[in-house]
Amino acid sequence: MTGELTQGADFLKFIRFTVNENLYKGVLDNQEIQEISGDIFGQWEYTGETYSLNEVKLLAPLEPNHIIGIGANYVAKVADRPDGLPEIPVFFFKPNSSVIGPEESIVIPGALDEVKFESELAVVIGKEMKDVAEADVLDYVFGYTVGNDVTAPQFFREDGHWMVGKSFDTFTPLGPVIETSLDPFNVNVEARLNDEEKQNSATELMIVPIREMLSYLSSVMTLKHGDVILTGSPLGAEFVKSGDKIACEIKGIGTLENTFV
Amino acid sequence: MTGELTQGADFLKFIRFTVNENLYKGVLDNQEIQEISGDIFGQWEYTGETYSLNEVKLLAPLEPNHIIGIGANYVAKVADRPDGLPEIPVFFFKPNSSVIGPEESIVIPGALDEVKFESELAVVIGKEMKDVAEADVLDYVFGYTVGNDVTAPQFFREDGHWMVGKSFDTFTPLGPVIETSLDPFNVNVEARLNDEEKQNSATELMIVPIREMLSYLSSVMTLKHGDVILTGSPLGAEFVKSGDKIACEIKGIGTLENTFV
Repeated sequence: MTGELTQGADFLKFIRFTVNENLYKGVLDNQEIQEISGDIFGQWEYTGETYSLNEVKLLAPLEPNHIIGIGANYVAKVADRPDGLPEIPVFFFKPNSSVIGPEESIVIPGALDEVKFESELAVVIGKEMKDVAEADVLDYVFGYTVGNDVTAPQFFREDGHWMVGKSFDTFTPLGPVIETSLDPFNVNVEARLNDEEKQNSATELMIVPIREMLSYLSSVMTLKHGDVILTGSPLGAEFVKSGDKIACEIKGIGTLENTFV
Repeated sequence: MTGELTQGADFLKFIRFTVNENLYKGVLDNQEIQEISGDIFGQWEYTGETYSLNEVKLLAPLEPNHIIGIGANYVAKVADRPDGLPEIPVFFFKPNSSVIGPEESIVIPGALDEVKFESELAVVIGKEMKDVAEADVLDYVFGYTVGNDVTAPQFFREDGHWMVGKSFDTFTPLGPVIETSLDPFNVNVEARLNDEEKQNSATELMIVPIREMLSYLSSVMTLKHGDVILTGSPLGAEFVKSGDKIACEIKGIGTLENTFV
């Protein structure tokens, strides 16, 4: 059974994981993992090996090519959505060095006392896309994962540059899986801080919706398999402190839990 | 002769090039290229094959991991340098999809009528660096190349976000070589537009000097081999139009020529 035959199939959950420090890729089905080899964006196949979820350590489900975020992209209710799109959306990059997986610690650097979680739907691009019309962009999407766009607004410059405040190591948890079949227009983006709900918004509250976002980005730059687009965070993100446990969840994908230290 | 023995040697100029669409790596010595195999940041060795510079097409000398730029980093004269460093420097990322090599065309997107060249000294990181003191950062530098941080200020947002205006395809020419031995504190960054000098400043005119810049960045994020830091552009960058020829030069590295179309 090869990737060419199965990639169109429903509800594949791709993961990366380690067992005894060895790195593997797999497909998660309930609590069982089928190991795969190859390139999830190209040719891959089942190795025949299986693992139980409770015997592995999950990693971020991919090593992204680029990580692109969009700023301030949610309103509180549908009626608040502006009539038009912003002429130039607030996009920013996050470095790959900031990526961690489920259950890993988010390290608050010593100089910081204001760090926020931001639960987000993350779109994983599957193939090269340039100048793609809104109607066609989903053909280029490989799948979806959950992202936490951890942010230190203390390191935002007053003149608007966010790079430093978004780029610290461990500031981009991703996971737990890349779900290949999801209706991104019909899910809620949730976050619970120490088990208390802080964010819970439908993706229809995005100011720049997913199709428009991807089409616009593809008009600027050539997107490529492995690019991850963080589609913005709902209202409700808060400052955290060491010891806080953050759970970002999108039903259909899973829950991405990390602890701040 | 292996990379381990030769990487400390003086004045190696690493290049990437194609011959009949086949991709090679090499070391340039005057007009002669010695082909190499392996990883320039790790183990590499001479293959024994040689090429003449005039029979190959040069590419950008590396595929960067991250490309990190710093904004507005030059003054006109040493006396203008501020006493202290900015609390949070203006850093930004550019995507790898924007990289082109020498002689390739810089494509001005249709919607733009204001595009600038920005000649820059580009630092290539050679090994993982985190929390490195200013005195030690040069130990982590693999070499230097010339960068052109092409920029469309029309796509800068008024609230300070530069991502779109910096990220168009072809907006980051790099090359012609990575020079492993250069005194970065004793070179001028030059640009000639259609053979007329527009930029020519010593790197001592940087507001955030190279050691401070790299040390600061390493306090935020883990830098890695293949990361490229664009260290800012001297005064004198101008708007260009289709047909303009831009030559960015740093003596000791070489000249990076591209044409706007």
